[in-house]
Amino acid sequence: MTAKSGLTLRFLGTGDAGGIPLFGCDCEICSNTFKGNGRRRPCSALLTCEGHSILIDAGRTDLVDLFHEHPFQRILLTHYHVDHVQGLFHLRWGNKNLCMPVHGPHDEQGCADLLKHSGILDFSDCLEPFVSRSFDKLKVIPVPLNHSRLTLGYCFKYKQTRLAYLTDTIGLPAETERFLCRWKPTVLVLDSTHAPGSASVRNHNDLHMALHIHARIMPETIWLTHISHELETYWLTGGLQLPENVHIATDGTEFCL
Amino acid sequence: MTAKSGLTLRFLGTGDAGGIPLFGCDCEICSNTFKGNGRRRPCSALLTCEGHSILIDAGRTDLVDLFHEHPFQRILLTHYHVDHVQGLFHLRWGNKNLCMPVHGPHDEQGCADLLKHSGILDFSDCLEPFVSRSFDKLKVIPVPLNHSRLTLGYCFKYKQTRLAYLTDTIGLPAETERFLCRWKPTVLVLDSTHAPGSASVRNHNDLHMALHIHARIMPETIWLTHISHELETYWLTGGLQLPENVHIATDGTEFCL
Repeated sequence: MTAKSGLTLRFLGTGDAGGIPLFGCDCEICSNTFKGNGRRRPCSALLTCEGHSILIDAGRTDLVDLFHEHPFQRILLTHYHVDHVQGLFHLRWGNKNLCMPVHGPHDEQGCADLLKHSGILDFSDCLEPFVSRSFDKLKVIPVPLNHSRLTLGYCFKYKQTRLAYLTDTIGLPAETERFLCRWKPTVLVLDSTHAPGSASVRNHNDLHMALHIHARIMPETIWLTHISHELETYWLTGGLQLPENVHIATDGTEFCL
Repeated sequence: MTAKSGLTLRFLGTGDAGGIPLFGCDCEICSNTFKGNGRRRPCSALLTCEGHSILIDAGRTDLVDLFHEHPFQRILLTHYHVDHVQGLFHLRWGNKNLCMPVHGPHDEQGCADLLKHSGILDFSDCLEPFVSRSFDKLKVIPVPLNHSRLTLGYCFKYKQTRLAYLTDTIGLPAETERFLCRWKPTVLVLDSTHAPGSASVRNHNDLHMALHIHARIMPETIWLTHISHELETYWLTGGLQLPENVHIATDGTEFCL
C-alpha cells in the first residue's frame, strides 16, 4: 500500500507465546525459519504518526537492537501476560537519563517484579476503557477485550483514518462490539490464534471467530495476527481461501493508511 | 586452554540484568556492541561433560536459535530472578514430545506464571544445599549463596576436576565458604557485578569482594562474571591490573578443564 494519511503500522511480531519456530520442533514450518523464512515473534507492532512512534506491546526481547537508531516515544500495553511485556525486563535498566512512559490497563499485579523495580519505565499513567486520550496528533480510545487477564484493545484515530488493534481476545465484549460498529474502523488488526475446531480454544479467537467479528464490524481491511503454530500449519496445508480484504499479518509487514 | 578432562564451560552471557548494551545508552562501550564487540548478555553458561550438556541459567531469550542443532539435556537454575529464567517463557511452549528437566532451589513463587504454566518444563526435581546429585558422569553439589532471593551456586566434579559456579551472591555464607576451602575448586566462576566503591552494591559482589573471595578460596583459576556496565567502564578506563590467574569472562569464552 502507499502512504495515505501519515499513519503507519509495522508488525514486529505476529505469533502467539510459542511463536514460530517452537523450541525443539523439527517440522517443515519451524525448520524454514532457520533459513530466514516465516518467523513469528511475540505479537507486537510499531505505530508511527508524523514521526511520533508508539510501541504496541513489548514481547520482543531485542528492543535494544530494533530501536537503537530510531527509538519510540512511548509504549502501550494491551495487558501484562509475559509474552506481551517480556522485552521490558531488559529495557527498564536502560540509560537513566531516559523516562519511558508505559500506558496500559490498571493491573496492580503487573508481571514478575516489573512494577516493583520499574527502572526507567513510568507505569503511572494507566488507561481506562472508553476514556479517550491524545498522544501528539493521535487520538486513542481504549476498549475492553475478553481475555484471562485485564486486557485493552486500542482504537487509534488520525485525521479521517481509524485503526483498531485488538489482541488478546476471544470474541468481543458487547459494549466493545457496539462501539466498533458505530466507530467503523478503516483497518482492524485482530487476534486469530487458533485453527478452526481447535481443542485448545480458550482466551483467544480461532479463525472462524475472527472472521465472524470481521463480518459484524465490517472494516475496509482486516489483518489477522497472534498466529499459533497450529493455525500456521492449518492454512499452509489446507489451501485456505480468505475473503479479499482479509490479510494474514507476517513479521515485518508494514502498511500505511 | 586445551581440553584436559572432557569438561567444557562456555559463557553464554556475562552481564547483569541491564547487560551491555544498555537500552538508550550511546556511550562508547555500548555503541561498540552494535559493531559486534563486547556484548554482555544475561549471565548464563553451558557446561558439557562427555557429550551431556547442562544449561546453567536461562536468561538468554534466543535459546531456540542457540540450541537448534545441539540441544542441552537439562537446565540448572541458580534462582528465579527474571534475568536468569526469562528464556524459559518461550521455551516452555516447545515441542510437546519433549520434557525438559529444570532443577533449581525450592522457590514456590517461581517467576511470573512459569511454575503455573510450565509447558514442556519439569520443575519437580528441586535441589537442596549440600545434597550431592549425579547427572550422568557429573557430580553436582549445590551450595547456598547470599542474595535477595533463595539462590544456589553449583560445585561440579568430574574425575579429578572441580568447578564452582557462584552467581548471584554478595560475599558467601560461612558454611559455603568453609565447604569451598575444603573442597578446593580447580576453577571458580564468580559474581563480580559492581565496580569497587560503587554506591549501588547490594546483593552482588563488587570487584574487591570477588578478589577477596578468590584470595580465601585459592582456586587455580577464577573467572569473573555478571559484569555491570559500571564495572566494564571502570576497568576499561582505569588501567586495571589483575592477578595472573584472574580472568574476566566474556560472552562466548570457552574453557576446558
